[in-house]
Amino acid sequence: MREARIYMDWNATAPLLPAAREACLSALDLAGNPSSVHGEGRKIRALIETARRDVAALCGAQPASVTFTSGATEAANWVLTPDFRMGKTPISIGHLYISAIEHPAIREGGRFGRNDISEIAVTPAGMLDLAALEAALAAHDRQTGLPMVAVMLANNETGIVQPIAEVSHLVKAAGGILVVDGVQAAGRIALSIENLGADFLIISSHKIGGPKGAGALIARGEILMPSALIRGGGQEKGHRSGTENPAAIAGFGAAARAAVDGLAGRMAAVAALRDDLESEMVAVAPDVIIHGKSGPRLGNTTFFTLPGLKAETGQIAFDLEGVALSAGSACSSGKVGQSYVLSAMGHDPGQGALRISIGSSTTRAEIGRCAEVFAKVAARRRLSGAAA
Amino acid sequence: MREARIYMDWNATAPLLPAAREACLSALDLAGNPSSVHGEGRKIRALIETARRDVAALCGAQPASVTFTSGATEAANWVLTPDFRMGKTPISIGHLYISAIEHPAIREGGRFGRNDISEIAVTPAGMLDLAALEAALAAHDRQTGLPMVAVMLANNETGIVQPIAEVSHLVKAAGGILVVDGVQAAGRIALSIENLGADFLIISSHKIGGPKGAGALIARGEILMPSALIRGGGQEKGHRSGTENPAAIAGFGAAARAAVDGLAGRMAAVAALRDDLESEMVAVAPDVIIHGKSGPRLGNTTFFTLPGLKAETGQIAFDLEGVALSAGSACSSGKVGQSYVLSAMGHDPGQGALRISIGSSTTRAEIGRCAEVFAKVAARRRLSGAAA
Repeated sequence: MREARIYMDWNATAPLLPAAREACLSALDLAGNPSSVHGEGRKIRALIETARRDVAALCGAQPASVTFTSGATEAANWVLTPDFRMGKTPISIGHLYISAIEHPAIREGGRFGRNDISEIAVTPAGMLDLAALEAALAAHDRQTGLPMVAVMLANNETGIVQPIAEVSHLVKAAGGILVVDGVQAAGRIALSIENLGADFLIISSHKIGGPKGAGALIARGEILMPSALIRGGGQEKGHRSGTENPAAIAGFGAAARAAVDGLAGRMAAVAALRDDLESEMVAVAPDVIIHGKSGPRLGNTTFFTLPGLKAETGQIAFDLEGVALSAGSACSSGKVGQSYVLSAMGHDPGQGALRISIGSSTTRAEIGRCAEVFAKVAARRRLSGAAA
Repeated sequence: MREARIYMDWNATAPLLPAAREACLSALDLAGNPSSVHGEGRKIRALIETARRDVAALCGAQPASVTFTSGATEAANWVLTPDFRMGKTPISIGHLYISAIEHPAIREGGRFGRNDISEIAVTPAGMLDLAALEAALAAHDRQTGLPMVAVMLANNETGIVQPIAEVSHLVKAAGGILVVDGVQAAGRIALSIENLGADFLIISSHKIGGPKGAGALIARGEILMPSALIRGGGQEKGHRSGTENPAAIAGFGAAARAAVDGLAGRMAAVAALRDDLESEMVAVAPDVIIHGKSGPRLGNTTFFTLPGLKAETGQIAFDLEGVALSAGSACSSGKVGQSYVLSAMGHDPGQGALRISIGSSTTRAEIGRCAEVFAKVAARRRLSGAAA
């Protein structure tokens, strides 16, 4: 009998939680446009507003500060713009500073021109170089407008957690705006937009066990907001037009509720499984390089390079053995590019790295099976090395 | 016993078709990111590509010309831009011409500046004034770039079908680009991007019985494309980044398949019900004004004014009697504004109008019950008139 497949690519997308699935179905089965004033419309509107409270609670924010989008990429494209408003007063942003390891949704820079975006280096440990950020902000030309800084809370490939509180301190000292991509951190470490000192936080439904098709931009207040990216019927207080996706939003809310519930204990259990796996990996292949192992890291992620094994080859080998993991991030159709995250950390990206990312429903048996497959792949690599 | 509610607001959103619901669930239950190269990713990718073929077939287009978005509003904001590319060559659009009765998603003009958008009048019958369009295009300053014209195929409030083939003739003679909002027409009249002579066609999933959260921009070819609105991981051939929403897209595909199947017969039956309802309305209230009745109109829509009854009051009265219909369009949260469509047709928008819109699952019994409620509301209006 063929063994069940093992899904270890949670950072690409998490399996749908039962509670999120149920919330999705409840919304799907309601006819009605949430903008309609009749009974059907009001009923489906209520689901959206419940989800807004749940997503706000996940981020330590006020519900009124949560704006739903079709996903984190849309939220990033919306907030990364030179054109903001403080109430009715236009506010200009002159330059965007991003870390060298941001997700492509941030790296593309939204509505900023290519020349208005600068990259800030990371250290070999994969952490933002705070001195480099400070120097860049000191050199910022305020004549062009305020500086905006976008840094992720946790990296999607390595899981490395960035020093956002320190980043915020520097950004505030420079009178700038801080955007934090919390997509990979949400549901894995406690999130509080206040404690982070972020002005805007981006999160995604499908990375926390909700359905694909919903994300949110969370603002610290309600006053300073980016100009709308998608205009039309005036939904989401005019910040994001278009009929809402109640099924995705309701599922997102349910997943947010589940994420808050017992987070610390759940993630400690996940981290214990991940640490066991890493121990077994090191035992069978002492030369394995686990990127970012020494620093602060999400408990669910292992990003590793096996010398002598190309990441693409390794990914296919694991897939054939029934284990789904990824070579770098899964950001566009079937494309396996070189990891700019590895490059930014000073590694040769040629060989690449593989990412194992697990979650709350990962079992010890799956970890054991994954370790077996790892041993097999590692052994084959040695054999081909010996033959060469 | 309380009677079941009657949903007659299909132009706001259509009830989810069983086949679309099933397709949604199949996608929801697959773990995997469609951009991942492992088995899970490839399986969910296949659902999206099947849907692409189904949506293309609905529009008489090639699958490669279909780009999925989060909805029609996003598609409109994307395509309404001065910045296009023909392959790698930039193409500039100098001015946007829209009809005076477009949906707000088009009226807002996407990425065009306010001064670069002109409205073209409609006749009292609610049809685009072709002579006015011709004059506007003759006066277009080609130094600024090509002209772009955006006209809807069927109006969301009145259901009036616009003379797109004639519009296309004028636009092509002026060397311009034609964008057609086919949101309300899709699934109600046969659609062919070729026969329409459109360069771009916009459709929405939830107006044809698919789930909310998916729409598409369909291009006549693949060469001339608008610059991306949402950039990042490079999904949808770089035209629309962000993890796709496979549940909404798969449901959209299933709804498109259902829409093509037996369209003419189904819509003839719907139109017969609608016509019966209008006959009963006229019989009990001969002064009722049915907007656009004399011209080409979708078979499912009745947009009417009852003298002496404010639309908002009427909408609430119907809602209390268990009938969901709308006062104008349902484009933003609970907002009931004056109808610019009525104004553009030369009617006083003060009293407003009510929209009944039905669909394939509307029954004769529901039509009968709606006619009863109409008679009751119309009688009450007379009474309050007599008492005044």
